[in-house]
Amino acid sequence: MARILTGIQSTGVPHLGNILGAVLPAIKLAKKSKSDSYLFIADLHSLTQIKDGKSLIENNFATAAAWLACGLDVNKTVFYKQSDVGEVTELAWHLSCFYPYQRLTLAHSFKDKQSQINTVNTGLFIYPMLMAADILLYDAEIVPVGKDQLQHLEITRDVAARFNNLMGETFVIPKPFLTDSRQQILGTNGEKMSKSKNNIINIFLPKEKLRKQIMSIQTDSTPLEKSKDPKKCTVFHLYSLLASENDSRDLKNKYLAGGMGYGEAKQLLYELLLKKFNKERDRFDYLYKNPQEVHSALTLGAKKASVLAKKVLERVRKASGY
Amino acid sequence: MARILTGIQSTGVPHLGNILGAVLPAIKLAKKSKSDSYLFIADLHSLTQIKDGKSLIENNFATAAAWLACGLDVNKTVFYKQSDVGEVTELAWHLSCFYPYQRLTLAHSFKDKQSQINTVNTGLFIYPMLMAADILLYDAEIVPVGKDQLQHLEITRDVAARFNNLMGETFVIPKPFLTDSRQQILGTNGEKMSKSKNNIINIFLPKEKLRKQIMSIQTDSTPLEKSKDPKKCTVFHLYSLLASENDSRDLKNKYLAGGMGYGEAKQLLYELLLKKFNKERDRFDYLYKNPQEVHSALTLGAKKASVLAKKVLERVRKASGY
Repeated sequence: MARILTGIQSTGVPHLGNILGAVLPAIKLAKKSKSDSYLFIADLHSLTQIKDGKSLIENNFATAAAWLACGLDVNKTVFYKQSDVGEVTELAWHLSCFYPYQRLTLAHSFKDKQSQINTVNTGLFIYPMLMAADILLYDAEIVPVGKDQLQHLEITRDVAARFNNLMGETFVIPKPFLTDSRQQILGTNGEKMSKSKNNIINIFLPKEKLRKQIMSIQTDSTPLEKSKDPKKCTVFHLYSLLASENDSRDLKNKYLAGGMGYGEAKQLLYELLLKKFNKERDRFDYLYKNPQEVHSALTLGAKKASVLAKKVLERVRKASGY
Repeated sequence: MARILTGIQSTGVPHLGNILGAVLPAIKLAKKSKSDSYLFIADLHSLTQIKDGKSLIENNFATAAAWLACGLDVNKTVFYKQSDVGEVTELAWHLSCFYPYQRLTLAHSFKDKQSQINTVNTGLFIYPMLMAADILLYDAEIVPVGKDQLQHLEITRDVAARFNNLMGETFVIPKPFLTDSRQQILGTNGEKMSKSKNNIINIFLPKEKLRKQIMSIQTDSTPLEKSKDPKKCTVFHLYSLLASENDSRDLKNKYLAGGMGYGEAKQLLYELLLKKFNKERDRFDYLYKNPQEVHSALTLGAKKASVLAKKVLERVRKASGY
């Protein structure tokens, strides 16, 4: 039984792009897979960027609540906060002593930041060592990664192999599972949906606010009566990601026929979102009213994760003489 | 009551130079001082150099046994192994996120290694962050340092101040206590005594081996009957460090008078070492026969240190939102 491990960023409520592109596929995979599944909120990594305790706490909570609301089953997946298993930072130290400094300066994540080199903190530089520890601490065998994280996984494999070579077989060498570059999900301004672009749709918003986000989707100025090109319309793009084939075809025909305004299409999208994510929205609201349920879920996960983490770290310490 | 913290390298049995220059003065200071005293074996730092579990264990044991044999009182000094308090690596991660990468590349300890840059490991690069954590984790107020470590203490003060500025008062800012560049202690070849120069005198050796080390001290070829210059003789240099003023004067006169060979002076030095370190040698042998006493001493220290470490780390975590 292979062990799959996934880290998730703790940047607050996942937006529609995250939900469709990452959250739901991961939950589906965990449900149908016979593999052992570990999923953690990478909140120690957040410290490289966020220097505000309140935001960090809120982001962690929102991230956890959204995953739970989307159906993550904590009995099937070990779901925990990175910071709840302190062993990971000790392992990162051990690994650092086995990885050449020079090689780490070649990591893309660091090189990309070199223009702002004066403000880059040391945590950001050694981040791949902490990521390697995240993976190796749990004997993970499979790590789903996007192309942008492939190099970090290579670093993980490299440092694990270096340690094994010098100190004897200690680490399981993980394999990447390259997640297919899924269909890009567009935001309200027609570009890729991204928090940093301020173009997101947050399905967990109260109805009126969500409606306002949908209504803010930029469309062209084709007059109401004219035929419209669904392929060029973000509203249709989002609608077709969620709707049944029949419903998509119906809307497509309305676009082509003319006589339908974008407002009407937006209203349809809004209603579809409410219908599709009805359960998730209710559960999210419930968790915000009952935060202890989120905390208990994470505490349970931390306990399970700690057992394995301590076991693996003990193996590492023994190999090095601690 | 100020808290003094000292880290000691774990490079095996301290030699005579270490004992006279560092071990005995530190023990004396701890005894007479009203300060709270923390002393730890920096065995996590060792991993930047030593990749051999057996050596690491032996070095730790020999270091601890020597300090205990020299009279370290574990009821007055919290004496522990760095690796027994895992919190230090977590704090090092936090600090890393508050310290500019660029500044760390300027540390002497790293710059000195730049000629071998291809083999320098990441642990060696981030070592000042772990050292900062060593100090800040215990709210240390005073850190005795030699000139070579002064920059690392400045880095510690700097990162603590940066954290305090951004996250609110969290860390005690430590002050360096510059240990006077004590009289240089010469090794068997007349250069400064140092393990790396292979010229040490190990006072804990069995008698015959110790005698052999003393007899190997290099002297000039002045014939037995001629007058000799005590100022130029390593044997006299070491003798005068340990002997009473009277005994030193007597030996000096013998040097100047002529008629005494270096072998006789060496025999006097050997006998003086046995006499001076009689108790320490016995206690060292005893500890090697009763290793559990060393382990209990370190376990006691780790327990005491952990209490404070957890308290301070909790303060740090709270400030950052963990």
